[in-house]
This record gives sequence, structure tokens and C-alpha cells, in this order.
Amino acid sequence: MRETTVIRLKEDIQLENATLLVGLPGVGHVGKLVVDHLIEKLDAEKVFEIYSPHFPPQVMVNEESTVKLVNNEIYVCKANGNDIVLLAGDHQSTSTEGHYELGTIYIDIAEELGVKRIFTLGGYPTGQLTHTDEVMGASNDLDMVTELKEYEVTFKPNEPGGGIVGASGLLLGLSMFKNIKAACLMGLTSGYLVDPKSAQALLALLSKILNIEVDVSELEERAKDMEKIVANLMEAKQQQQQQQPEMLRDTATDEDLRYIG
Amino acid sequence: MRETTVIRLKEDIQLENATLLVGLPGVGHVGKLVVDHLIEKLDAEKVFEIYSPHFPPQVMVNEESTVKLVNNEIYVCKANGNDIVLLAGDHQSTSTEGHYELGTIYIDIAEELGVKRIFTLGGYPTGQLTHTDEVMGASNDLDMVTELKEYEVTFKPNEPGGGIVGASGLLLGLSMFKNIKAACLMGLTSGYLVDPKSAQALLALLSKILNIEVDVSELEERAKDMEKIVANLMEAKQQQQQQQPEMLRDTATDEDLRYIG
Amino acid sequence: MRETTVIRLKEDIQLENATLLVGLPGVGHVGKLVVDHLIEKLDAEKVFEIYSPHFPPQVMVNEESTVKLVNNEIYVCKANGNDIVLLAGDHQSTSTEGHYELGTIYIDIAEELGVKRIFTLGGYPTGQLTHTDEVMGASNDLDMVTELKEYEVTFKPNEPGGGIVGASGLLLGLSMFKNIKAACLMGLTSGYLVDPKSAQALLALLSKILNIEVDVSELEERAKDMEKIVANLMEAKQQQQQQQPEMLRDTATDEDLRYIG
Amino acid sequence: MRETTVIRLKEDIQLENATLLVGLPGVGHVGKLVVDHLIEKLDAEKVFEIYSPHFPPQVMVNEESTVKLVNNEIYVCKANGNDIVLLAGDHQSTSTEGHYELGTIYIDIAEELGVKRIFTLGGYPTGQLTHTDEVMGASNDLDMVTELKEYEVTFKPNEPGGGIVGASGLLLGLSMFKNIKAACLMGLTSGYLVDPKSAQALLALLSKILNIEVDVSELEERAKDMEKIVANLMEAKQQQQQQQPEMLRDTATDEDLRYIG
Repeated sequence: MRETTVIRLKEDIQLENATLLVGLPGVGHVGKLVVDHLIEKLDAEKVFEIYSPHFPPQVMVNEESTVKLVNNEIYVCKANGNDIVLLAGDHQSTSTEGHYELGTIYIDIAEELGVKRIFTLGGYPTGQLTHTDEVMGASNDLDMVTELKEYEVTFKPNEPGGGIVGASGLLLGLSMFKNIKAACLMGLTSGYLVDPKSAQALLALLSKILNIEVDVSELEERAKDMEKIVANLMEAKQQQQQQQPEMLRDTATDEDLRYIG
Repeated sequence: MRETTVIRLKEDIQLENATLLVGLPGVGHVGKLVVDHLIEKLDAEKVFEIYSPHFPPQVMVNEESTVKLVNNEIYVCKANGNDIVLLAGDHQSTSTEGHYELGTIYIDIAEELGVKRIFTLGGYPTGQLTHTDEVMGASNDLDMVTELKEYEVTFKPNEPGGGIVGASGLLLGLSMFKNIKAACLMGLTSGYLVDPKSAQALLALLSKILNIEVDVSELEERAKDMEKIVANLMEAKQQQQQQQPEMLRDTATDEDLRYIG
Repeated sequence: MRETTVIRLKEDIQLENATLLVGLPGVGHVGKLVVDHLIEKLDAEKVFEIYSPHFPPQVMVNEESTVKLVNNEIYVCKANGNDIVLLAGDHQSTSTEGHYELGTIYIDIAEELGVKRIFTLGGYPTGQLTHTDEVMGASNDLDMVTELKEYEVTFKPNEPGGGIVGASGLLLGLSMFKNIKAACLMGLTSGYLVDPKSAQALLALLSKILNIEVDVSELEERAKDMEKIVANLMEAKQQQQQQQPEMLRDTATDEDLRYIG
Repeated sequence: MRETTVIRLKEDIQLENATLLVGLPGVGHVGKLVVDHLIEKLDAEKVFEIYSPHFPPQVMVNEESTVKLVNNEIYVCKANGNDIVLLAGDHQSTSTEGHYELGTIYIDIAEELGVKRIFTLGGYPTGQLTHTDEVMGASNDLDMVTELKEYEVTFKPNEPGGGIVGASGLLLGLSMFKNIKAACLMGLTSGYLVDPKSAQALLALLSKILNIEVDVSELEERAKDMEKIVANLMEAKQQQQQQQPEMLRDTATDEDLRYIG
């Protein structure tokens, strides 16, 4: 495999007014948690496998100790009358050029499937261990901004200040060339930990927007486990700060947290 | 978008003896500040958009929370009878090969537009927080060196010692193959901070060279704000040096400053 | 040489039900030690040389001070009636894209030679200086997992947790597209040192699976030498821990070991 | 310029039994110092310029403040009846693939010019600030090893242990495919400093091998200046070791030296 290879698993895919949800690995794995959860709960059908030399040379090992070459996958499902397309995967591109190539492939597939709007899902790193269930947004379409404000998505001028990097951002940009509306929804998250709590908040919002109902009990449980870990971390951080010589305090604790995520 | 894509927004572009000004992000963002300022104040017209897999996979978020795929753009305007072409953008190439590809595209466009001379604008890092309003130069043409000395551009043999890296340097080199005269003008700047003060000095010089008048009040205001920040930084640095154990002094304060820019 | 170049040293290669063993440099050089040892002891014949711009720009210097351009090589031999193909080499690809290109070339050659099963050999880093002679496995085929359990290969669900990266993993994935069964066998090793002891354990297991006998005296000797080094290291580590200020203990000793491998 | 571009400055180049000397930037800039010196002293004629997207996007600034796009250059000259080809340049390739592409171009040119033997010149890093005037060698041809031993080139089995990386090594490897004999000659050098003293020793050896005489007074002068710097460094190092807390001694002084080169 010297080139990106798209394997189509189903010939005849009929969708109407479909919405594409993108949940690839990223900050706090928030987007990935949401889309992987939806694929399972909505019993979505896999219709494309994408393999590429722009993914790492790597296999993942599953429960039976058998392996799977890392890839991205596209699923479809119907929920409360809506056609939903889901893009999930083990990795984003390892190279800049690969990001553009894969992004172009995804938008071409979206166009072919008649996708009318795209939500790319991700995390917004706050650097704080705790935060409210806020979801930040940005869009390639001003009407979409107005519409999403009604769902209490937070929009701040020029934020994120450094733009949105990676597939979540790039797909907003590339879809403009195909006149597909797209928004990025980012759950607030520390940036240090895989964050099921942020995913839960993002999924709740998304369910309202899509007008669907999804069982979130598993995410909820993982979120509770995570809250315990955070509580322990914060306690440890506090103790550490009291024990350390003063000049090392801030940097040392930040470093420690960074290695957890 | 798998390849660099040039979108031409205007078919018939008639210029005479045009001068190209290049202001891409770089040291102190000096060049970018000058060119972005000129585009606004001279009411320049956008005539090309350049998108490329050699730019980061990223969108910028604007005031309305809508996004723009990172790109470079070419504008044209007329000022005091001079035809001016301006190259601005969010990023330089992320790869070495991309630098050469994009540089070649820019010089080909410059040639097509009949550009007769090029000024690439940038910053010259001094490592000092304060400095005079000096502008350093280098050129691909000895006559241009002589001419620019009359405008009090500083030329020092073999400086910068490490050459000029990035678009500002490469475009001087590539334009030689098309026999286009080009000079790099570098405003002295600390290298740690975005520097509107250096941009103001560079713009003043450039206005003399081009024989144009530009309102600089906004840059002036930003330069004053920046001077306050620098004053605070220097005070903080002084205090820090007095408090720190001696062996950590120099490196620690340098590190701190580096994170500000 | 601008492209990967495969030099075929023998036209007519007749194999039956061949097994491919892959031993490229990696964790503890375990796989490389085993395959290089087998090539020597089984008097295998070199049939392919692979050169590539994806290998480092480097020559190796041999005993006579003459050089060899870094490459990968494919050997064949017959042992106790089995046809064995061996892939050895100085380096893995330096780039992600190169990994996919070279991996595809290897699997194409394996298919052409009628290879029926593949064992990629490597090390499994434990972070501990000492450990038992365990071999971990993962496969692209569930029957192969069952079969290898009979040889006391350890299989753990979802382990290694980060998947298997590099040629050892990728070849498991790419061979699935050609319906070739493949397993990765990983000898437990510290991850800090070239590990002939782990190689010896892996070779013993492999000999049982292939039903062949191989003289391991050299590996044994090197393993004994290594055990002495490890004993010295552990003693040094212990002393170091007693001497160091408490807060530096763990990180410092880990760092030291890392530089040995 | 999207591709490597070879500009031929002279059509008819007639050489006999030519020797190619390669002196690109590298350890201690030993090879570059020797070849740049020879080009000047032997009044060599430039016959090829090579520009490439695999070089950094950079111009060098010369004495008149005019610029030159970084490149590699090939010169020819006749010295004491010998035809000599010299490869010099500002940089080596920035990418692995570029190394192979440029190396192939150089060997193709060498073949076309009828080059019969190649010496790639470099430095051999010892980590010590002072050392004898020794030159290490490696070759792609056993006869050449024997011959060079007569000139007191040092050959050690399997050394350098990590092979020879970069153009100096790669060209030995690539020239084997064209049946051109090649040796790498490496002057011993600290690895921390640009080393005219090592260059002087290497040039003296090379002059014997080529049976030519070259004025080395400039290199000698630079070598003397350098010896003073080294003497100062060693004194500084000694003082520093006496002042520093014991646990920081070795690493700190090594770090310091590394920033000088």
C-alpha cells in the first residue's frame, strides 16, 4: 500500500440530508469518545475503510489478541428519521500533506453521500483540571453560528486564538470549497486526560441538535471514574506543592499532569 | 486539495513597473505587521488566494466566529502613482520542499504581473529588549545595495551571519533566476515579542523608498502599548535577577522572555 | 538511487509452504539477533537486496574497513524439510510513508515466493532489568493465536496497549490484504539494552514451532556476558540511589540506563 | 524551482583519470575547509551549480551584502598533471530522500566526467578537545584500503561503529553501483568546533596522496588562532569544574562546549 486506499464496503448508499459527525483522536479524545459511542449505540453500519501511508505504521491489538491495521472508517445510520454519517479512526495523519490528502478524500465522500452539514467534534484545552460543561463552537457559515447559539454553544470572537489545528479545523476549511456547511464543536477539557465527562456534555448537546436520544450510561460511568481520578490528582497536587521547595512548585506539578493524558 | 492551488480572483490585472512587498509571519512578525497595515490603509484589492498542503492543516477563527482556511494572498493597489503588489499570509510553508514550491509560484506570479523590484520585509533578532529604529538590508543586486544605502538602510558584510532563512531569503534567491531585483529589509527587533515598534520604523523607511504616505497612527498606538509591556518586562527581569540564586540567573530570564513572543 | 531498488540475486527460487521470519532492528534488537543468528547457522542464501531512500544515508563499516550501503536483505534456506525465508537488515524505514512502501514490497515478495505464514520477531519492553523468558504474541489470524498458545506464547487482551509500531506490526496488517497468516512474537526485554538473552528465549520457542534445531551456543555466551553487565548495572543503580539526594533518585537512574541501550 | 536543478556552466569538460574530492559541511567542517581551500589555492573553475528543494530555503550574505541562494557546486582543476574535481557547498540535504537524490546526481556527474576515484573528506568526532593529527579511513574497495595504509591512514575494524552518515558515507555506497573506487578520509576532531587544525592535517595527507603541493599558510594561521581558543576553553573548563557543585560538573561543561561549534 503505497497510496491512500479507500475500500468501499457497500455499493448502494442512499442518504437524505445527511449530517456528518467527525470524531478522530485529539485533545482529551473528546470527539473520538462521542463518535465511537454513537457508532455503538446507534448500531451504525461500516461503509468505508480508509488506509493510508499517512497513518503510523502500526496495528492495534484487540481483545482476542488479533490485530487491525490502523485506519479511519466511515459509518452510516438512521436515528429518529435523520441520516447520520460518522467518521471515526485510530489516528489522524502523521504529516501535514497527509492531512490535506485525507481531508480532501473525506469531503469528496461526504459530497458523494449528499452530506448537507458537518460537525467536527473535539476538545478545547483549558489547562484547568475542572470546568463547567461548556461547548465552544466555530463554523464556516454565519447562519450556522446563529443557529448553534440557540443550543447554547459558546462562540467567542477570534477563539481559539491559535485557530483550530488538525482534521477538526481542516475539514471546516475544505468543506467551504464544496459549499457544505460545517461547524466544530469543542467540549471544554483539561487537555491532560482522556475526558469522558467532556464527551458526555458534548454528546448531550449534539443529541439536542440532531433531535435524537442516546443511552449515555456507559459514558456517565466512565465520567464518574474520571472524576475520582481528578479528585485524587488535585489532592496529590496540593500535597506536592506543600512539600516541594518553593521555586520548583508550578513547573513540577504541570509536568506531572502532562504525563498522565 | 492535494496540490497547491492558486485561485485567481481577477482576470485582467494591468500594472506598470510594479513593486512587490512580501510580509509573511516571521521574526517579531515585523514584515507581516507592515504589509497587513498597508493592505488596509491603501485599500488594496485581493487578486490571488493560494492554498497549499504545505501550510498547516488549520483554520483561523475571525471576529464572527467563522473560519478561514490558512492561506497566502496577493493584493494590488496604486499609491502616489506607484503600482504595488502585496503578498500576505497566515503562515509560511511547514516543509523545506514547500518553501521552494511556494516561492517559485510567487516569483512566477510576480513575473507575470510585470514586477520590477521586490522588497521582502522581516525582523532582525537582536536578543535585546530595546534598540534603535535601525533597518538592516541585503539584496540580490549590488546597485540596489547602493541605492538603499541612501535611505539609511544598514548593510554589514556577511550579515546576518547565518544567512536569511525562510521566504524572505528564498525569494531573493529565486528572483535572481528571473532577473528581478530584490532586497530584504529587516527591522531590528528583540526576537521575543511581536513588534509593532519595529514595524513602524520599517514602514517609515519603506514609505520614503516608495514615496508614499501612510497613516501609521494605529501602529504607533500598538507600539506604545508594547513599550509599556517591555518596560514591565525589564523591571520584572531586574527583580527576578535579584531574587534568583546566582547560577540560574541568565538562562532563567531568557527562557521566560522566549515564551512571551 | 531515487527510488527503492530491489536487486534479485537468484532468478529461480522454488519454495514450498514457506515461512517468512522478519528480524529487523527494534526494541532490544531481539528480532535482529534471532534472524541474523539463523541466517548464519542455517547457512541461508541471499536472494534479494533492497536499497531505499527511506533508509538513512549511511554506510556500515565492516571488519576489513570496507563499507556496505545500508539495506535490507532476504535470504532463503531449508531446515528439517521446511522452506524458510528470512528478512534481515541494518535499519527500518526512516519515514512513515517509507514503512508502507517497503512493507508492501516485502509482502509482494513473500506472496511471489509462496510464503504461507509470517513471524515478525521483536522485543517487548518491560522497563525492568530482569524478567522471565516469556514471549508475547499477537496475530492477524485467530487460529494462529490458538495454535501459538500451545507453544506457551503469552497472549493478553489488547496488549501491547499502544499497538505494535514499525515493520513488525505493519507487516501483520499488510499481509491481511494478501490473506497471509502472520504473528508477531515479542521476547520480553528491558528496552534499555541489546538483549541476547531475550533473543535466546525467542529462538528456543521459534525452533519448537518450526521443528528445527539450531546451535545457540554463541547467543548463550553473549547472554551470559549481558547478565554480568546487568548485574553490574543493578549494583551501580543501588549504590547511586543510596548516594543521591532523595528527590532525584528515580528519574536520574532511569535516565542513566536509557543511555546504555 | 520545484525539482533539483543542475546548471552546467561549461559544455566541454575533458578530464583524464580524474579524482573527485568531496568537502561538504559536516563534523568540524573539516572536509569543507579542505575543499574550499583547494578551490581557492588551485584556482579551480566552477563547472556545475546544483540547486535543490532539499537544501534549506535560505540565502547566504556575502561581503558586499549581496546574496547567494544556498547550493552545491562542482569545480575542476589540474594540479601537477592530475585532473581534480571538487564538490563543495553550503549545506547537505535536509531530508533523507534528498540525500539519495543528490548523491545519485553527484555520482552520475562523476561518471560522466570519467572520475576514477573519489575521496569524501570529513571529521571524526572524538569528544576530546585535543588530539594528534590522525586521519581515519574507510573505503568501498579493499585495494584502496591497502594503498591508503601506506599513507598512514588509520583503519580500524568496524569503525566508526555507527557507520558513516551523510554525503561522505552515502557517496561511498552509491559509487559502488557505478564501480567507482571511493574512500572516506576523516580528520580527528573534537566535534565541538570548526577545526582548521584537523583540516590542515587532512590536507597534508591528501597532498601526499595526490602528489600536489598546496600553500597552507592561511589554514595554519586559522589553526593557530583555534589552538588559542581551545587553550582558553580548557582553562575555562578547569576553572568551572573547580567552582561548580560536584554533581553538575561533567554535564555542564560538555553542554557549554557544544554551543560553541
